[in-house]
Amino acid sequence: MPDELRQAEETDHPRIVAAIESWWTDSRSPAAARELSLLAPRLFLQHFSGTSLVTERGGEMAGFLIGFLSADRPEDAYIHFVGVDPALRRGGLARRLYAEFFDTASCAGRSRVRCITSPANTGSIAFHRRMGFELVPGDTEIDGIPVHRDYDGRGHDRVCFVREISPSSGS
Amino acid sequence: MPDELRQAEETDHPRIVAAIESWWTDSRSPAAARELSLLAPRLFLQHFSGTSLVTERGGEMAGFLIGFLSADRPEDAYIHFVGVDPALRRGGLARRLYAEFFDTASCAGRSRVRCITSPANTGSIAFHRRMGFELVPGDTEIDGIPVHRDYDGRGHDRVCFVREISPSSGS
Repeated sequence: MPDELRQAEETDHPRIVAAIESWWTDSRSPAAARELSLLAPRLFLQHFSGTSLVTERGGEMAGFLIGFLSADRPEDAYIHFVGVDPALRRGGLARRLYAEFFDTASCAGRSRVRCITSPANTGSIAFHRRMGFELVPGDTEIDGIPVHRDYDGRGHDRVCFVREISPSSGS
Repeated sequence: MPDELRQAEETDHPRIVAAIESWWTDSRSPAAARELSLLAPRLFLQHFSGTSLVTERGGEMAGFLIGFLSADRPEDAYIHFVGVDPALRRGGLARRLYAEFFDTASCAGRSRVRCITSPANTGSIAFHRRMGFELVPGDTEIDGIPVHRDYDGRGHDRVCFVREISPSSGS
């Protein structure tokens, strides 16, 4: 069955929160996965749905991407949160979500996409490299990976990615 | 000593996180205050500093406001997170931060400002009413206050505010 890929809507928010609480328990405790959902408050689906995506398979949410165009940096677009149902991984869903976001950002005249992940998330680091992202030099290195310590607060170290895209003049 | 009110910068982020972890402990456990800081990831200071504010007194952060112009709703501006040093409350700092944000939003042609708070935060509800906000009808009422249940996820009930402002044609 082909997947449906569409713009996100505010009404997707409860399912996105439920997905975060469910899909991340392979690497976290239920409490930590629940805490993680605080990173995706409803405001992103109210104010940045135009650059956010949902993919469905058989009527069930299969993946989502929350992203936006930077207000301060006219060249930048930012991918804030991406999730794919663990049962459907390695099927190209994340790649498709990213490609669609690159298109959206490009059509809006953006030339750069940024995102971050946790140093422990080696799968995410490998995925972003495959997607053409470069790692932004940090203030330390862990296992050869540049890390920005306390990036999002004390103990919240992050790995930072940047990828050039070709801005389109729009259609 | 007069307060300085200025546009926020990315370098303010660590102090904002520290402020959230410190200023909110009057109503929360340190762990809960620390969890709250997840609502203010660095991305807001990287991409929405142009509509965010910091006020300082004697070189110390006295208050901050993180807000942005909605990408999806061309009439809306949104105030995401506001904090004032508890030792400096009732001195008009929050009112000044809001007034400055209203001006910024108005100059950007926005006609409406939205924000939310927790139902338990009666001080915040009273403040927003004094600032001219109306309460958005919810799906239940608690002590006469309209509440949106599970607004930001299970158990994260919210009170929603909206205030009309006069859009300016710019300078």
